Amino acid sequence: MTDDQLTVEPIGTIHSPYETPEGMPIQPAGTDATGRVELDAAYEDGLADLADFSHCILVYHFHESPPDAPLRVEPFLDDAERGLFATRAPNRPNPIGLSVVAIESVTDATIDVRGIDVLDETPLLDVKPFVGAFDVPESVEDGWITDSDDDPDAVRADDRFR
Amino acid sequence: MTDDQLTVEPIGTIHSPYETPEGMPIQPAGTDATGRVELDAAYEDGLADLADFSHCILVYHFHESPPDAPLRVEPFLDDAERGLFATRAPNRPNPIGLSVVAIESVTDATIDVRGIDVLDETPLLDVKPFVGAFDVPESVEDGWITDSDDDPDAVRADDRFR
Repeated sequence: MTDDQLTVEPIGTIHSPYETPEGMPIQPAGTDATGRVELDAAYEDGLADLADFSHCILVYHFHESPPDAPLRVEPFLDDAERGLFATRAPNRPNPIGLSVVAIESVTDATIDVRGIDVLDETPLLDVKPFVGAFDVPESVEDGWITDSDDDPDAVRADDRFR
Repeated sequence: MTDDQLTVEPIGTIHSPYETPEGMPIQPAGTDATGRVELDAAYEDGLADLADFSHCILVYHFHESPPDAPLRVEPFLDDAERGLFATRAPNRPNPIGLSVVAIESVTDATIDVRGIDVLDETPLLDVKPFVGAFDVPESVEDGWITDSDDDPDAVRADDRFR
């Protein structure tokens, strides 16, 4: 291991209704599915004050992604290849995923969330409060996604990234 | 190393005007500072199509954070202690940071960005397009940050997390 490497370890597990990618929503806004984020009990105290936020950002390991990450991918929303870093595809050089989800409740070391779009048993790496003042730019252009004929709320994943 | 661990490696480096935390903005919206994100040349092809997005999410290693991460911290915007996972403090069990920044241009393997709030020489782990449809909830409540008397745009960091 070089000094540049960083080894991360799960702080808990994300439970969701999705046991396989097939049929999973491709983004949190595409679903009202509920999930349960269970932190290891040792981290319970760190969840204080989180329930006062409407949303949080889950940072997790795309644990089912194969190790190779092609630099051009065909996203679920397009039939053209796009640069990997212009997509949210799970196969990435560092397979770290982010999802903004709504907080339903926080109990002990557990967060119940709505709008989950990750696989069941996904290893959780971090939880951050979603802060409108930090995380919402004044105006946003969504690049190739704007041109997509597909409705991101309706499109479902398949097995292309396994 | 257990199966649960994940080792990540920088895919590039973030250059910013901030050589120390003292005086650094605490959030991207608090600055018009420009920065340069240099990916390793091998990843250049993965940046195709990114320039059509207005913003991207930088995922990086909080490389100057000490290894211990107390579960209660006093954030820059508050004089009360808050649960770690209800703050964006850099000392975390997995020291992974996120910043939404504006894309100025993409040239070869380099992204010029505006609104940077990270230390110079920060190791880059991933770049994702910021997608309004995925990343902006319909309504957001910012928890304790709403009650803060401090203006997040004006507050600057200090050395408390070193």
